[in-house]
Amino acid sequence: MSQHDDTRVIGIDLGGSNVRAAVVNAQGQMLARDQGITPADEGSEAIVKSILDSVNRVLGQAHLAASDLSAVGLSCAGLSNPETGILYTSPNIPTLKDVPLAGLIEKELGKKVFLMNDANAAAVGEMHLGAARGARNFIYVTLSTGIGAGVVIDGKIYAGSTGLASEPGHMIISDEGPECYCGSRGCWEPLASGTALANYARRRIQEGIKTSILDYVDGDAERVTAEVVHRAAQRGDALAKEVIARTAYYVGVGLANLINIFNPELIVIGGGLSNIGDMLLEPAYEEARRRAFSQMSDVVRFARAKLGEDSGVLGAAVFALGEL
Amino acid sequence: MSQHDDTRVIGIDLGGSNVRAAVVNAQGQMLARDQGITPADEGSEAIVKSILDSVNRVLGQAHLAASDLSAVGLSCAGLSNPETGILYTSPNIPTLKDVPLAGLIEKELGKKVFLMNDANAAAVGEMHLGAARGARNFIYVTLSTGIGAGVVIDGKIYAGSTGLASEPGHMIISDEGPECYCGSRGCWEPLASGTALANYARRRIQEGIKTSILDYVDGDAERVTAEVVHRAAQRGDALAKEVIARTAYYVGVGLANLINIFNPELIVIGGGLSNIGDMLLEPAYEEARRRAFSQMSDVVRFARAKLGEDSGVLGAAVFALGEL
Repeated sequence: MSQHDDTRVIGIDLGGSNVRAAVVNAQGQMLARDQGITPADEGSEAIVKSILDSVNRVLGQAHLAASDLSAVGLSCAGLSNPETGILYTSPNIPTLKDVPLAGLIEKELGKKVFLMNDANAAAVGEMHLGAARGARNFIYVTLSTGIGAGVVIDGKIYAGSTGLASEPGHMIISDEGPECYCGSRGCWEPLASGTALANYARRRIQEGIKTSILDYVDGDAERVTAEVVHRAAQRGDALAKEVIARTAYYVGVGLANLINIFNPELIVIGGGLSNIGDMLLEPAYEEARRRAFSQMSDVVRFARAKLGEDSGVLGAAVFALGEL
Repeated sequence: MSQHDDTRVIGIDLGGSNVRAAVVNAQGQMLARDQGITPADEGSEAIVKSILDSVNRVLGQAHLAASDLSAVGLSCAGLSNPETGILYTSPNIPTLKDVPLAGLIEKELGKKVFLMNDANAAAVGEMHLGAARGARNFIYVTLSTGIGAGVVIDGKIYAGSTGLASEPGHMIISDEGPECYCGSRGCWEPLASGTALANYARRRIQEGIKTSILDYVDGDAERVTAEVVHRAAQRGDALAKEVIARTAYYVGVGLANLINIFNPELIVIGGGLSNIGDMLLEPAYEEARRRAFSQMSDVVRFARAKLGEDSGVLGAAVFALGEL
């Protein structure tokens, strides 16, 4: 980030519910921000329009025109090719399939758009502005509705041979485990994500286990979320604690794999599920250390992500700055 | 490998049964070779002596002195740190623990010794002289008594933050699966290695399944090996075919993980177990493609390793040449 002081980029974070956009300067500071709605069910045209609306609002806030921008970074969950700008599939926006998302926005703004996976964006953001400053070999893992990861090797995102790496959320840790939307089964994601946690809680409730979790959702098991389970666990609910302990175990198994495969110096954990904090993460780290080679688990540090909700927009913006 | 024509290195492959050594020129050609015994139970002093004996014999064959060498490459199964030259642990040579192996040999020969994991050595060998020529992002997997791997990124071995990457043989693919010597359970290795195959065959035989496998080992189930199971399967033995199919399934599950994590262009399969060939590998590739994201499994090629028994010595030698 050695650009002139007047360099401005926009970072966009396209999520299943919201579009976020921010104008960011060469130092990685947000000068303006906006949040809009993702019309997830309405297809690519409506989604692109919503992105552009958000971009125009944030440009207005910053008293800028699109022509003042140096580039745009676009973060989106799912499988995408950063070289072609095509989004193949996004778990939270099923109407987007094989869409040349970067190209569609480039055409409207007249500026280069860098499309990237949300976890890769967050990894870049944490490296430059957050918990991974100074680290050269680390992994950012987002524990959220799904599980994503960005692997940084020698200070650069590891993209693989066609830009699709890395998807450890779909590494198999329990080969006969639950089916996964990806077509496989026993992947890390359907065992250790926020969705997995809530599903397991619901299943146990339906088995008739007595729990105060239902008090938080008017007795409607369908409305149980990871957050609600966490609140019940904080008040000592036995089922809630069991559900979190089980999720922690699976989080730890996956982390052990990442340690034995990558020998990283640091693993940064982000995503909504990680907000449960020590109750989830400490036993997960313990399981990982128990499972991985001590020579590798002894050197790895674990840290919580620092950028929170801003990781997507900031990471996308910082990535775009790095490409200038 | 742009060294002068008179550049000579030695590659050493320290295995559980044998020490191999070869004099190699700048073009990667073997000028002389030797094979000795590994006194695996006698500890580091005896093992170093055996290595030096082999080196001296091969130097004699090539009419060279140690002083004529530019460097030495040393390949050994197990966990080692290429920067310090320390071998932490080797599955087939349990008497070697935390031994400064490179340093001990350097002291005797007066030449720089590069210590590396045997799978990393084989990956380098296949990249320069074998099945991975021209590939920049690929994974070499050895299916042998254990499972090892060398990950090549942008033409270089991926070493991780402290030189210990990568050990996907100890990625967990079945979290409640069999115990592994590493302390974890359900790792790829105790499910998909040659040892795993033979163990499973023995277990099924002990359950009383009728099989011709025993005909090859004088009725002694303890002597069953992967090779014997393969021979019985080729003659149509039902249990032998079941055992190989089960191993293929687990090989495939692990390969799916490598595809989803690394998005490689190529996976090269070597090691003694891979000599079973299509009967093992085709169903393994099929399972991997079924499990991995199609966008990634569509681009990956699978190939058999080409260097065979020479992969260790050649890879170690070529690695040493690359460091000159």
